[in-house]
Amino acid sequence: MIKAAVVGAAGYAGGEAIRLLLRHPGVEIAALVGNSNAGKMLEEISPWFREQIDLPVEELNVDKLADCDVAFLALPAGVSAETAARLLERGVKVIDLGADFRFADKNVYEKWYKKQHPHPELLPKAVYGLPEIWRDEVKGADLVGNPGCYPTSVQLALYPLLAAGLADLSRPVIADCKSGITGAGRNAEKHLIFCEANDSINAYGVAGHRHTPEIEGGLSRMAGQAASVLFTPHLTPMSRGILSTIYVALNQPADEAKIREIYTAAYKDEYFVRFLPQDVWPHTKWVAGSNFCDINLKMDERTGLLVVSAAIDNIVKGAAGQAIQNMNLMFGLPEQQGLEQIPMMP
Amino acid sequence: MIKAAVVGAAGYAGGEAIRLLLRHPGVEIAALVGNSNAGKMLEEISPWFREQIDLPVEELNVDKLADCDVAFLALPAGVSAETAARLLERGVKVIDLGADFRFADKNVYEKWYKKQHPHPELLPKAVYGLPEIWRDEVKGADLVGNPGCYPTSVQLALYPLLAAGLADLSRPVIADCKSGITGAGRNAEKHLIFCEANDSINAYGVAGHRHTPEIEGGLSRMAGQAASVLFTPHLTPMSRGILSTIYVALNQPADEAKIREIYTAAYKDEYFVRFLPQDVWPHTKWVAGSNFCDINLKMDERTGLLVVSAAIDNIVKGAAGQAIQNMNLMFGLPEQQGLEQIPMMP
Amino acid sequence: MIKAAVVGAAGYAGGEAIRLLLRHPGVEIAALVGNSNAGKMLEEISPWFREQIDLPVEELNVDKLADCDVAFLALPAGVSAETAARLLERGVKVIDLGADFRFADKNVYEKWYKKQHPHPELLPKAVYGLPEIWRDEVKGADLVGNPGCYPTSVQLALYPLLAAGLADLSRPVIADCKSGITGAGRNAEKHLIFCEANDSINAYGVAGHRHTPEIEGGLSRMAGQAASVLFTPHLTPMSRGILSTIYVALNQPADEAKIREIYTAAYKDEYFVRFLPQDVWPHTKWVAGSNFCDINLKMDERTGLLVVSAAIDNIVKGAAGQAIQNMNLMFGLPEQQGLEQIPMMP
Amino acid sequence: MIKAAVVGAAGYAGGEAIRLLLRHPGVEIAALVGNSNAGKMLEEISPWFREQIDLPVEELNVDKLADCDVAFLALPAGVSAETAARLLERGVKVIDLGADFRFADKNVYEKWYKKQHPHPELLPKAVYGLPEIWRDEVKGADLVGNPGCYPTSVQLALYPLLAAGLADLSRPVIADCKSGITGAGRNAEKHLIFCEANDSINAYGVAGHRHTPEIEGGLSRMAGQAASVLFTPHLTPMSRGILSTIYVALNQPADEAKIREIYTAAYKDEYFVRFLPQDVWPHTKWVAGSNFCDINLKMDERTGLLVVSAAIDNIVKGAAGQAIQNMNLMFGLPEQQGLEQIPMMP
Repeated sequence: MIKAAVVGAAGYAGGEAIRLLLRHPGVEIAALVGNSNAGKMLEEISPWFREQIDLPVEELNVDKLADCDVAFLALPAGVSAETAARLLERGVKVIDLGADFRFADKNVYEKWYKKQHPHPELLPKAVYGLPEIWRDEVKGADLVGNPGCYPTSVQLALYPLLAAGLADLSRPVIADCKSGITGAGRNAEKHLIFCEANDSINAYGVAGHRHTPEIEGGLSRMAGQAASVLFTPHLTPMSRGILSTIYVALNQPADEAKIREIYTAAYKDEYFVRFLPQDVWPHTKWVAGSNFCDINLKMDERTGLLVVSAAIDNIVKGAAGQAIQNMNLMFGLPEQQGLEQIPMMP
Repeated sequence: MIKAAVVGAAGYAGGEAIRLLLRHPGVEIAALVGNSNAGKMLEEISPWFREQIDLPVEELNVDKLADCDVAFLALPAGVSAETAARLLERGVKVIDLGADFRFADKNVYEKWYKKQHPHPELLPKAVYGLPEIWRDEVKGADLVGNPGCYPTSVQLALYPLLAAGLADLSRPVIADCKSGITGAGRNAEKHLIFCEANDSINAYGVAGHRHTPEIEGGLSRMAGQAASVLFTPHLTPMSRGILSTIYVALNQPADEAKIREIYTAAYKDEYFVRFLPQDVWPHTKWVAGSNFCDINLKMDERTGLLVVSAAIDNIVKGAAGQAIQNMNLMFGLPEQQGLEQIPMMP
Repeated sequence: MIKAAVVGAAGYAGGEAIRLLLRHPGVEIAALVGNSNAGKMLEEISPWFREQIDLPVEELNVDKLADCDVAFLALPAGVSAETAARLLERGVKVIDLGADFRFADKNVYEKWYKKQHPHPELLPKAVYGLPEIWRDEVKGADLVGNPGCYPTSVQLALYPLLAAGLADLSRPVIADCKSGITGAGRNAEKHLIFCEANDSINAYGVAGHRHTPEIEGGLSRMAGQAASVLFTPHLTPMSRGILSTIYVALNQPADEAKIREIYTAAYKDEYFVRFLPQDVWPHTKWVAGSNFCDINLKMDERTGLLVVSAAIDNIVKGAAGQAIQNMNLMFGLPEQQGLEQIPMMP
Repeated sequence: MIKAAVVGAAGYAGGEAIRLLLRHPGVEIAALVGNSNAGKMLEEISPWFREQIDLPVEELNVDKLADCDVAFLALPAGVSAETAARLLERGVKVIDLGADFRFADKNVYEKWYKKQHPHPELLPKAVYGLPEIWRDEVKGADLVGNPGCYPTSVQLALYPLLAAGLADLSRPVIADCKSGITGAGRNAEKHLIFCEANDSINAYGVAGHRHTPEIEGGLSRMAGQAASVLFTPHLTPMSRGILSTIYVALNQPADEAKIREIYTAAYKDEYFVRFLPQDVWPHTKWVAGSNFCDINLKMDERTGLLVVSAAIDNIVKGAAGQAIQNMNLMFGLPEQQGLEQIPMMP
């Protein structure tokens, strides 16, 4: 039985990790950490967990977590790396849901996150935890940087195309992404209250969102050449879900049937990726609560661009679910274990 | 392995039965039935089930269902009873999610549902499937009338009070209930389209909804005396959930602490009923996707009335989940089996 | 041209007052006040007002408001009365959207609002601003206590019945009310963020909400005898609107046709109250953005109770719209002026 | 007083035309037409209009409309043109909210709408009614093709840039557009019911939506050279609103400040277009119920692409509001008359 700690237990990603881990047959939740709520029982903070877990939320104390096998960190940038370093010293494997271990190059991190990386020496040990692409690396890892929600959807959407060398990366990839409001966290901020966000959609962080370098780095690495990405996130009036609509140029005449074959082949053994039939477009609700990524695509003959659309649940495949998928790989468990939830629709 | 058929597979209740049964360790879904969608694969109708089940939806043919152990029926009134009769003849146990087997007295059914009961001879064999109250009867049943969604919430909300004989039933019980829109089914009707229902609430079926006699009969039976109920349903802009706010007079001076003790005692061994701490009021989203019923109450000293509030997921505890709970009891399985989903919030 | 000040301009009720006053042909907005946002232009706080008004939000300075004819106050309890007193001294009429002037008896206020009333000497001058009932009093007033949102809907729903002396007030009136989330204000509180409130409904303030004595006092006054009320508010996943479902006993045999006649007669000259045809139930969205109150009712023959359902837009007829209706009366303008918005549906 | 007929009165665009025209000081609604609802009063179909208009909905009879000055047509493709031809013969000016008169070239229409144009001889007389761009043409028109909702937002978003000759139209313009569900009409279709659409977003009509040639034609005409457009619409869980996020290449080094100046100048006298301050991004709810189009933009230095975001209310500026703006121009009324609604937020 793997002993796991969830650090950041009061937030949405932490809560989703708890929801999934409580039903994972190979895991026992050993500790819940959340500084601003320390001392309360989880059900006082998140009453839907009533009678499901009988643990208090505690202040972070790495020594008390030393007998855990793994810690899931949902912490602010910088704090994650500090905490990870101390946990690794104590032999606890770390899956960081934040950005501190997503970049091989600390300069990229420091430029976009506008702070010094507290433990750059750990970066060479860290593995980028997108299992469908980097499964083998994840298997041996002690420290995983869990991908961002937007980057997960965009990378899975383009992986077969880029791996097949069909994209014309001399032209920018455009990723127009729509996120549910859980993506903004469980924070009491005015622009997040129901009446500000309900029945409305808006772009934000235009031409400057911090997931841009993560997407760009990921695409470049899988293509084996530099990609440039223009990424626009949108706040969408729904609780969960990301829909990414992606526009990419090809380096050869378009042949949609051939591209469909490539995607089908690339994902035929991937349980969590569902390449949909022609003209069935991903809906975020169709993956809600599950670890699935639904994908479809279409060639626009008129402009020569390929449109790829991908849907995930941002706090499952885009956060806690993928983290557990990584944990399964790190500990030699079946990759799907504890992650076979069927989407909850409606 | 229990072989189960889901009849009415394309609707929301049928779909929820499939979602839950697919992860039930003791059940195999052997057949999907849905006349208006016959010939299609389930994923063509409900694409979120892609790669989860590989069965077509078929026209109803009771002979082809004869080797099933149990059938879940989500069918129109009257059609259910016809189908149930023919399945029972073939040795298939039946759990009817409709109203045909909820009333011991066919006259009540015929008055409120405005049609002749096609098989009144089956009514004595039918058990009303509210396990927290009628568990022992369910255990031996071949034919279960699964309670309506509203009646489930109201009966669980009042059971301890009525069983303890504390209610003054000479005065009407008022049940003001708010339902998510799945309660209206998966039908293309104008008043159900997003733009008609979004951001709005309304009462409907006032002083005449067909769940009234079911609630009244249920309360009367558990109290051992005639209860009269005024039930008002409301269409609420959310996908799932019922919240019932119930007003009931007491037959003795109010003592909230004592009532809280009675509820605590009544439900302490009931996994699916959570009696919440003082001042924590049930939220429908806090039970979404789960088989839980959350309850709380408060005495209004000023009027001498007790207010009880109960939340369920209308298509889980109010339909498919409770049906599976009944199945577990009918087949001697652990009552919670396959029903331990943690609520999906947010 | 009436010069008006809106105090509390950054909130939802204040914002709605601005929206309506900007198109009122007899009013000029002369000042916007909002302490926590002082120094900003309104459009920085509420960007939808861009190019509609060119005023900064200022700190409260009663001397600077002295040349206004009227001030609309949307302020915390207690602060309103302090401010009102100083404005009245300077000859500015006051319409208080808070509770400070809703009670003739300061003891009721002090008991429920748990603070001393800072200016009880003003209470005899204050008029309760529900024009459909107390129109003549409003006409001569310098100081109006604008009714609460819930109390507005409940009182309009019951007025004809109580005025006709048909209610049996020896039994409590039950008001089960559902409010959109604007009712909780424009505050960054965790339970109000989209993901906590979306797709969910819950009761709150059960058997203790501060609108209870206002409803009770209002009903008692219009009936000419003491009424007792059990009021339960609910937070409903919609931006605007209140739906009140009310249960009341009659003091004589029920005759729905007669009651319908009474309501029709009572409201036939009231522009803002629409008594709907039989079986057409009020929907909150059908009054959104308007000053209408839609009402319908039905006798429940089985229990002898009357069910009345009323819908208003909580920040129009339940706040800013009614305040302007009061202003029109106070200043001798046509009562409907500036308030003839057609509901915005969908 | 202009006498106006609304044809298609039961739909959302027709309803919005009625809402606006009822408060237009220069217009009298003389007739409501709607074949499938003929014989009913409008309030039976759309109860929110109760007591606002006392007209039945009638079957189309062009002779009975002959004394109208103008007719607003919200009809299926092809039917519009038939009706328009007969109305024009009778001296009734026509504003068609459908697509029949949006294309100068009947071949484009016939290719994308897959039907013969019944009256190609009228196309030379028809004016494309986007007043901010083609105001002078509209002024003299008897027949206006009112722009589509998506095309309105995209054209207004790009007009200053294209008019200034700054776009590199050798590369495709990408328009990623998100529409509220009113865009799909008031039709009882399964995919539009609340529970299918709530809390979910999806692309549809990818690389093939019929608004593509309208956008392309419009951009080409304003640029004076051929533009090619890849347009992707999305169904977004909100009632109203379109947000268009547009990606366009420049034909010279990027200078955001200069582009901002161009936009400011282009729209400084346009009441209905609000070019927002830097970093304030359009939200659809901030224009709800109004005829405004809010726009902002940002250069992405990294890819050299300009991102433009525009929000409109799809049934106001995207349909009925713009139609009335056109009517005002056609009849010599002030362009803003009857269209000065302040957005209703929240």
